Amino acid sequence: MTESRLIYLPLGGAGEIGMNAYVYGVGPEDDERLILVDLGVTFPDMETTPGVDLILPDIDWLAARADRLEAIFITHAHEDHVGAVAHLWSRLKAPVYARAFTAHLARMKMEEAGLDQEVVKTVSAWPETVEAGPFRVGFAPVSHSIPESAGLVIDTPHGRVVHTGDFKLDLTPGVGEPFDEAMWAEIARDGVQALICDSTNVFSEHPGRSESELGPRIEELVAGAPGLVAATTFASNIARLKTLAEAGQRAGRSVVLLGRAMRRMVTAAQDTGIVTDFPKVVPAEEAADIPRQNLMLLTSGSQGERRAATAQLSRGKYLGFELKEGDLFLFSSKTIPGNETSVLRIVNAFSAMGVDVVDDSSGAYHVSGHANRPDLARVHRLLTPKMLIPMHGEHRHLRAHVKLGDEAGIPGAVAPNGTMLDLTGAAPRVVEHIEAGRTYLDGAMQIGAFDGIVRDRIRMALNGHAMVTLILEEDELLGDPWCEIMGLPEKTRNGAPLVDALEAYLSDFLYRADRKTLRDDGKLDDAMRRIVRKAAFDEIGKKPEVTVVISRLT
Amino acid sequence: MTESRLIYLPLGGAGEIGMNAYVYGVGPEDDERLILVDLGVTFPDMETTPGVDLILPDIDWLAARADRLEAIFITHAHEDHVGAVAHLWSRLKAPVYARAFTAHLARMKMEEAGLDQEVVKTVSAWPETVEAGPFRVGFAPVSHSIPESAGLVIDTPHGRVVHTGDFKLDLTPGVGEPFDEAMWAEIARDGVQALICDSTNVFSEHPGRSESELGPRIEELVAGAPGLVAATTFASNIARLKTLAEAGQRAGRSVVLLGRAMRRMVTAAQDTGIVTDFPKVVPAEEAADIPRQNLMLLTSGSQGERRAATAQLSRGKYLGFELKEGDLFLFSSKTIPGNETSVLRIVNAFSAMGVDVVDDSSGAYHVSGHANRPDLARVHRLLTPKMLIPMHGEHRHLRAHVKLGDEAGIPGAVAPNGTMLDLTGAAPRVVEHIEAGRTYLDGAMQIGAFDGIVRDRIRMALNGHAMVTLILEEDELLGDPWCEIMGLPEKTRNGAPLVDALEAYLSDFLYRADRKTLRDDGKLDDAMRRIVRKAAFDEIGKKPEVTVVISRLT
Repeated sequence: MTESRLIYLPLGGAGEIGMNAYVYGVGPEDDERLILVDLGVTFPDMETTPGVDLILPDIDWLAARADRLEAIFITHAHEDHVGAVAHLWSRLKAPVYARAFTAHLARMKMEEAGLDQEVVKTVSAWPETVEAGPFRVGFAPVSHSIPESAGLVIDTPHGRVVHTGDFKLDLTPGVGEPFDEAMWAEIARDGVQALICDSTNVFSEHPGRSESELGPRIEELVAGAPGLVAATTFASNIARLKTLAEAGQRAGRSVVLLGRAMRRMVTAAQDTGIVTDFPKVVPAEEAADIPRQNLMLLTSGSQGERRAATAQLSRGKYLGFELKEGDLFLFSSKTIPGNETSVLRIVNAFSAMGVDVVDDSSGAYHVSGHANRPDLARVHRLLTPKMLIPMHGEHRHLRAHVKLGDEAGIPGAVAPNGTMLDLTGAAPRVVEHIEAGRTYLDGAMQIGAFDGIVRDRIRMALNGHAMVTLILEEDELLGDPWCEIMGLPEKTRNGAPLVDALEAYLSDFLYRADRKTLRDDGKLDDAMRRIVRKAAFDEIGKKPEVTVVISRLT
Repeated sequence: MTESRLIYLPLGGAGEIGMNAYVYGVGPEDDERLILVDLGVTFPDMETTPGVDLILPDIDWLAARADRLEAIFITHAHEDHVGAVAHLWSRLKAPVYARAFTAHLARMKMEEAGLDQEVVKTVSAWPETVEAGPFRVGFAPVSHSIPESAGLVIDTPHGRVVHTGDFKLDLTPGVGEPFDEAMWAEIARDGVQALICDSTNVFSEHPGRSESELGPRIEELVAGAPGLVAATTFASNIARLKTLAEAGQRAGRSVVLLGRAMRRMVTAAQDTGIVTDFPKVVPAEEAADIPRQNLMLLTSGSQGERRAATAQLSRGKYLGFELKEGDLFLFSSKTIPGNETSVLRIVNAFSAMGVDVVDDSSGAYHVSGHANRPDLARVHRLLTPKMLIPMHGEHRHLRAHVKLGDEAGIPGAVAPNGTMLDLTGAAPRVVEHIEAGRTYLDGAMQIGAFDGIVRDRIRMALNGHAMVTLILEEDELLGDPWCEIMGLPEKTRNGAPLVDALEAYLSDFLYRADRKTLRDDGKLDDAMRRIVRKAAFDEIGKKPEVTVVISRLT
C-alpha cells in the first residue's frame, strides 16, 4: 500500500465560470477517502446546446467511487454551486452539508425532485466543524452576492486547505457577515498547506467596492424619478434587493416583487432569519390602485431571460403593470458574457416605450460579488499558503491567477477540470488526467455531451431536414419516392416546389437502379441521401440533413 | 398634384446597428424621385437565424418603385453599408456611386455575383458632385475605421441635407483625410435643412481618441515581446493594419498577412492608391524559416469567426504557424455585442497554449471609428441644422441622440426602420409607416423573415424531430407505423428504445381507430402528431416536432 496523499480534482468550474464541483481526497493512491465541494450547474445556449435545459458536471469518475465519498459540502446557494445537487445526488448518496440559508434552498430542490430532504444537514459557521472521514470541515463566513457564503476550512492529516468558494472583501456587505481579517489570520496562523481560490475577477485591476456604496446613489436615483420605477438584479442577491426596496420605501413607494424566483429568495431569507427587516412588500394583485409614481417594482430576469418578469414587462403588460413614457428601469446588475443580446433586446424595447433605462456602466448602481486582483493579492498575503490553486475561472483567469501568486512567491498550478493534483508536497504536482466533461439535462433525461443528439439538432438548425419515404415490394417500387422538408425553402431558384424537384431526381435514380441496389437497404439509403443533398445544393444552395425511410411490404 | 416635399425613409440601420439603407425622396406625394444611401447587410446568429448566410434589408417598398430610383450612393466599404449591393441590385437597377476604394470593392462584389461592374461609378471627393434627378450629391471626406469614408452633402430643391455616414472626428487618422472643420463650416454656411447623423457611440461620454495615439503604444508592446507576435483587427481597418505592420517592422520583424479578407483589403488599398507606404509583407509560404521572435502575423477574424485565421490559430497549426508559450496575441479591436463567447473561446484556447493575450480593455490598443457624445454635440453646433434625424443605432441610441439634439435646441425624431419622415418644414414630421423588415440570404435563396423556415429550424433545434411513416391500402393498415428520430435521446427513462415506445403508442391508437379516421389523412396526421408529442413528453420529457407521412397504395 502506498503512502497517504492529499489530492484535488476539479470536475467542474476550473476552465469555465459555472458548474462548480471539486473533489478532495486523502489516503493511499486509488483508495483515497473523498469529499466533494459544490455541485453546480451551468446554463445552455442556442449556439452550442440548443434544447438543453441545464448543463451538469460529468461525475462518472466520482459516481464509480461513491462508496469512498464521505460528504458533499456546498459553499453557497448560487445555482452554479448548488444547482446540480438534486439532479445528481442519487448517484452519490452522501450527506450534504451547508449553512442554513443554503441548506434551506438545497432541501427545496431535493423535495421538488422527490428526494429525501433529510440528507441535507445544516452546519453553523466556523468554528463549528463537521467530521467526514479523514477530513474536518468548517464553514468560515465570507462576503459575496448571496447570504451566508462560506469559505471552507478543510483540515486533513496533510495539513489545512482553504477553499474560498466565491467571495469578496466587503467590510459593509449590508446583509451577512463582513470580511473578518482577524478570523482569517487566526485560521492561517498554523499554516495553510494549499489555498484553492476564486479567480473570476482576476482581471479587475481596482480593489472591489462595498455593497454599502450603492445605497445613497440608488436612493437618489429613485427619489428623483417622476414615474414608476422598476429595478432588476439577481434574485438571490438579498442585500441588493434590500437596498433597492429601502430606496423605494424612503421615496414613499410601495414595493412589489415581480417574479417567482425573487419572491422565493426573499421568503427563504426571511424564513432562515437572514433578514428580519426587509421592507414591507405589497402583492402584485393589491398594487392595481397605487399611482405609478408611488410604485417600485423589483423584477426578476436581470440577464434577459425570456420568461422572467423583466422580459415580460419589456413586451407589454405583465400582471397588471405596464411601463410607459417617463418611467425608469434600473439594471442593478452586470450582464454575463453571452447574455448581451438578450439584455439589449429588452433595453431597446423599453426605449421604444419611452422608458429611461439606467445600467451599471457608471458603476453607481452595481458592485461585483467577487474579489478583484488587489483583493486576491491581499488574501494571498493574509493566508500565506504553501501553494495556490486557482479555481472558478476560465483558463485565462486561472493562468493569470497563478501568475499573480508567482509574484508573491507562492507556487501554483493551472488545473482545469479533470486535472488531479497531489497537494501533499511543497508544490502542486499533476498526477493524473480524468475524463471530465458535461452532462446535459434534456427534458427528463440526462444525455452525454458526445451522444450526437445535440449535434444533430444543430445540424438540423443549420441545414434544414429532408425526409424521403420509399415503399418497395421485393425489388419492385410501389409508387414514387416521397419527400417532405422542414426548415427549408418551399421553392427552388426556378420557382418550382423543392419537394417536386427532389422527387424527380430520386425517381430518375430509382428507375435506373438495378435489382441488387433495390434489394439493399444500406445502399439505397446512402445513394438517396447523397442525391437529395446534391440536388438540394443545386436547387437552393443548401445541403440538408436527410432521413430516408425504406418500407418493404412482405 | 400635391406640392413637392422632401422625404426620408430608413429601410435598415435605424433601430439596429448594421444593414444600413436609407431612402430620400423629392417630389409630389407618392411620386417622389428617389435615391438610396447605402445598402448593407447584417450578420445572422444561431439564436434567431440559424443556417442563414446573411441578413439583407427588405427592399420590397423600394423595388416596387425602382422606376423612380435615380441612384444608389455608398458612403463607405463596410459590409453593413455595401454588403447587400450585389445581392439586391437586380431588383433596383440604378447606378451605384462611391469613392474609389469603396467603388473598387463594390465592383468586386458585382463581379463575383456575375453582374455588370460598370454600374458602379467612381466619384471624387467633395466639391465634386453627382446629379441624380432633383438631387445633387457630394462625397465629403470623414474619418472612420476604413479608408475613404464620406458624409454625403445632398442638395435638393428643399434645401441641403447632410447624411454623415459612419464617422469620427480624427485630426490624425493615419490613413485618409483628417476631420476638416473648415470644410464642414463652409458646407453648412448657407444652412442645413436636416442632419442625418450616426448614433452608435452616443453613450460614450468622452471625446473620441485619435488613431495616432495607438502607434507608440503598439510599438512598445511589440518591441518588448520575446516570441512570435500576432495581432488581429478588422480586415478593412487599413490604418490600423499599417500601424500594426509598422510596429512589427520597427521591431525587426517580418510581417505576414494571414487571412484572405486581410490580403484582399490591403491589396485594394494599394491598388486604389490609398496607401503607398504599407510595410513590406512576406507571403506565408516564405515565412517558414524566419525565427518566431522575428515574426509579426496580422490575422483576420477579430470577432472570433470560426473559419478565420485567428480562430484557426487558436485551434492549432495554421498555414505552418503555431503559437506557443511566450508568444503574444493582440486583439487590436473591440468585441461586438453577441460575439463575446466566440472571442473568449479563442482567448482561452490561446491561454491554454501559454500565449499572452492582450485586448482593448486598457484602451491602449484600440480606438473606435465612431463619434462619441461630445463629438456629436460638436457636429450639431458646427452644422446647426434645422432638424436632426439620428440614424445607425439601436432604438436606445436613436432616442438618446434625439435628446442630445434637444439640449442644443434642435428638433429631432426617433425614426426606426419603416418610418417615413417629411423633412420639408421646420421640424421632422412622420407621414407614413412602411413595412420594413429583413430578408435572409439562405444558400442560394432569399427567404422572408416570416416564411416560417427559420422558425421551423429553431423548433427542430429546441425540440428535436420525430418522423412517422404509415402505409395504408384503402382503410387497411399495411404493417405497423414506423418512427425515426433526430436530435432526440435513443432511450426512454425506462431504458427502452424511444422509437419502440412511440410506435407502441401509435399502434395502440391505430388498431382502435375507426374506418372513418383511417380514411382521413388530415385526422390521422393530427392524431398521430398529438400522440407522438404526448408520448415523447411522458417518456423523455420533451415534445418534439413531428412529421407524419401517410402513404396510400392504390
